[in-house]
Amino acid sequence: MADPTTLALERNGGVLTIRLNRPEVRNAMSQTMLAELLAALADAEATGVRVVVLRGAGGHFCAGADLRDMAAARMAPIGDTDPVATSNAAFGYVCAAYARSPLAVVAVLEGSVMGGGFGLACTTDVALAASSVDFRLPETSLGVIPAQIAPFLVERLGYSEAKRLAVTGARFGAGEAYRIGLVHRVCETGADLDAALAETLRQILACAPGAVGETKALLRRARFEDAGALVEHAAAVFAKAARGAEGAEGLAAFIEKRKPNWVE
Amino acid sequence: MADPTTLALERNGGVLTIRLNRPEVRNAMSQTMLAELLAALADAEATGVRVVVLRGAGGHFCAGADLRDMAAARMAPIGDTDPVATSNAAFGYVCAAYARSPLAVVAVLEGSVMGGGFGLACTTDVALAASSVDFRLPETSLGVIPAQIAPFLVERLGYSEAKRLAVTGARFGAGEAYRIGLVHRVCETGADLDAALAETLRQILACAPGAVGETKALLRRARFEDAGALVEHAAAVFAKAARGAEGAEGLAAFIEKRKPNWVE
Amino acid sequence: MADPTTLALERNGGVLTIRLNRPEVRNAMSQTMLAELLAALADAEATGVRVVVLRGAGGHFCAGADLRDMAAARMAPIGDTDPVATSNAAFGYVCAAYARSPLAVVAVLEGSVMGGGFGLACTTDVALAASSVDFRLPETSLGVIPAQIAPFLVERLGYSEAKRLAVTGARFGAGEAYRIGLVHRVCETGADLDAALAETLRQILACAPGAVGETKALLRRARFEDAGALVEHAAAVFAKAARGAEGAEGLAAFIEKRKPNWVE
Repeated sequence: MADPTTLALERNGGVLTIRLNRPEVRNAMSQTMLAELLAALADAEATGVRVVVLRGAGGHFCAGADLRDMAAARMAPIGDTDPVATSNAAFGYVCAAYARSPLAVVAVLEGSVMGGGFGLACTTDVALAASSVDFRLPETSLGVIPAQIAPFLVERLGYSEAKRLAVTGARFGAGEAYRIGLVHRVCETGADLDAALAETLRQILACAPGAVGETKALLRRARFEDAGALVEHAAAVFAKAARGAEGAEGLAAFIEKRKPNWVE
Repeated sequence: MADPTTLALERNGGVLTIRLNRPEVRNAMSQTMLAELLAALADAEATGVRVVVLRGAGGHFCAGADLRDMAAARMAPIGDTDPVATSNAAFGYVCAAYARSPLAVVAVLEGSVMGGGFGLACTTDVALAASSVDFRLPETSLGVIPAQIAPFLVERLGYSEAKRLAVTGARFGAGEAYRIGLVHRVCETGADLDAALAETLRQILACAPGAVGETKALLRRARFEDAGALVEHAAAVFAKAARGAEGAEGLAAFIEKRKPNWVE
Repeated sequence: MADPTTLALERNGGVLTIRLNRPEVRNAMSQTMLAELLAALADAEATGVRVVVLRGAGGHFCAGADLRDMAAARMAPIGDTDPVATSNAAFGYVCAAYARSPLAVVAVLEGSVMGGGFGLACTTDVALAASSVDFRLPETSLGVIPAQIAPFLVERLGYSEAKRLAVTGARFGAGEAYRIGLVHRVCETGADLDAALAETLRQILACAPGAVGETKALLRRARFEDAGALVEHAAAVFAKAARGAEGAEGLAAFIEKRKPNWVE
C-alpha cells in the first residue's frame, strides 16, 4: 500500500501499530483517514500481522468525524446518492471491518475518545486506557445521530447501557468506562500503559493466530444463534483446527513441554 | 385525555412527571392504572414532551400487579379469551410502549420495586435509586411467572443475570442493583436524588429530541442485527438528521459557539 | 440409571449434587463422563429433582476435556464422520442440555476451572466460587478452539467480554470473575461456601419448580425476540401457570399467610 498521510504505521514482528496521526485536530477522522484505515487493515490481514494496535498521536485517541469533510458533504450536490450518507457509510464500513477482522485488535485510549472515535474503540477486542481518558457521545447534542457506532455500542456495552449513554450524551472518565466494560484496564502513568500493552500483546501472541480468528467468528455467530443450534458447526470448526497445523504444533509443544511456535 | 385517577401528572416545560399514585397499596398496578399509563404516554408523545419521569407516591415505586384485579380475572368466565391472559397482556403492552417510546424515560426508584414494577423500571433509559430501595421478583415464589417482564429483564441485565434473579427470587438492594446495571446512580438522601434527577434532565434536554428518538430506534435494531448489515440504513438515518432542522440548528449553534435551541 | 463411574451422585430431597469425580486428572471430562452427565440430568428431570448442584471432587471443579480421549479420537479412522468432531459435539450436547434444563442448576467452583469446565460453569443459573478459584481458557494457546463453549461464554458474559477472554487466553481469579458476572458470590472459606450454597438452595426451593422452568424458557426466547412480539405468548404462559396447581397453591399460601408447599 502507498504510504498513508493520516496514519503512522509501525510494524514490529507480528504486531502492527496504527496511529491516527492528525494531532492538530485530535485525530479527527477524514475521508482520507477512513480509506487509509481500511487499506492498512487489509494489508495487515494479508501480510501475517497478528495483532493490530490502534492508538492516536499527540495524547488523544480520536475526536470523532472530521467536521470539515462533513461540511463538504453537505454542500455537494445530491445525485443518485446523498454525499452525507455516503461519507457516513464509509465510516461504518471501517468499523465493520475492524469488528470482524480475524486479527486481534487492541485499543490504547488516551485523551479525547469522542463520537466516531468512541465507536471505533468499541470494535476492538481489548481496550487499555490512560486514567485521564475522556469519553463522549456528542452527536445528539449537535442534532445528529451516533448512527454507525450504534451497533458497536450495543456489542460492547449491551443494549441497555448503550441506550443510557446515547440518551444522556455520555460524558465520563476511565472509572466509569471500566465499570461498564468499555475498557479492560486503567493505567495511571504512560509507563503503566506501556507495560499493560506489552503484557496484553504477550498474552495474545501466545495464542495460535488461526484459532483466534476462528474463535472470533464463532463468538460472532453465537450473538444471534441459540447454543444448541451451533453444536455441529462448532464441532466441525474444532476438528478442523485440531487436525490442522496449529493443532499439531500445540499438541507437540504440550507433549514436549515447550512453548508452541506460532510465528514463522 | 381525561384526568387520571391512579396517576398524578405534572408537566414542567418538556418534562412530564408521571407519578404512580395509589400509595395505600404501594402503587400496585390495577387495570385502570395500566390504561392510564398508556394514555399518558400517548398524550406525552403527541404534545411535545421530551422526557418522561416515572416515579411513585408515598415513598414506594411500585409493588407490582394489583392482586385484587388478578383475583377478579380468575373469577371471570373464560370465553374466546382467558381474562387472566388478557389482563396480563395489558401490562405487557404498557411495558412495550414505554420501552419503545422515542421519548427519553427516567425512573426514580424508592422503596418497593417488585414484580411488574421491577419490569417497568427495566424499560426506562436511566434509573436513579434511593439507597433504601428494595428490589424483588416474587412471582415464582407465588407459583406464577415474571412473564411480561422477562424480555425487559433480558434487555436491561442481559440473559444470564436475568436468569439468576428469576431462579432465586431476587431480593436485593441498591448496591447490587448498581453493580448489575439495573440502576445508574444511587443517592443517600432525597436532596441527592433531586439533584441527580435535575442533572440527568439537564443532560437529556441538551440533546435534540428527534435525534434521541432515532438513536433509540437504531439501538433497538442493533440488538438483533449484525453491525455490517446496518451500515446503509444507519447512513440514511444519519443523513436525514444531518439535513433536517435539528442538524441545521446543531451546526449553527456549533459555529456560533452557542447552545442549540431544541425547544420551541 | 446404572451407577456412574466418573460422577458421585448424592440426592437430598429435591437437590441432586453431581460431583465430577476424577480427582486424579482434576476431573477432566472423558467421553464416559459426558455420557454420565447427560444421563444424570435426564434422570434428575424425570424423578422430581428441583435443583442440580454441579461441583468437583478433590478441590478442583474441572480441568477441561480429557486429553487422552482427544488423542484417541485423533488416531481413530475418519469415516462418514470425523471422530474428533463427534467427541467434541458430545461435549456440546452436554452443555446445551444443562443450559436448557428446566431445573435450577448451581455451580460450586473451586480450584481449576478450565476450558470445557469453564464453559460448563457458564451454563449454570447461579455460580458460587471459592476465592482461590483459577479460571482459564487455554484452547487457543494449544492451537485449538473454545468451540462448544463459545455460545455459553456469550450467554454468560456478553459478546464483548467473551471475545476479550478468548483472544487473550483468559487467566484470572475470583475477583475478576465476580466483576464480569461469571460468578455471583465469592467465599473465603469452605464454611462460607457451604453457607452460601445452603442459602442459594433455600431461595430456589422457595420458588415453584414448574414456574422456574417456564421462566427459564421464556428468558431464553427473549434473547432473540423483541419484547413487543412476546406479549401474547407471555400472557398465555402466565395464565396457564396462574390457573394451574402451582398458581392455586401460591395464592392459597398467600391468603393463609403460610409458606407454599411445592414439594410432594
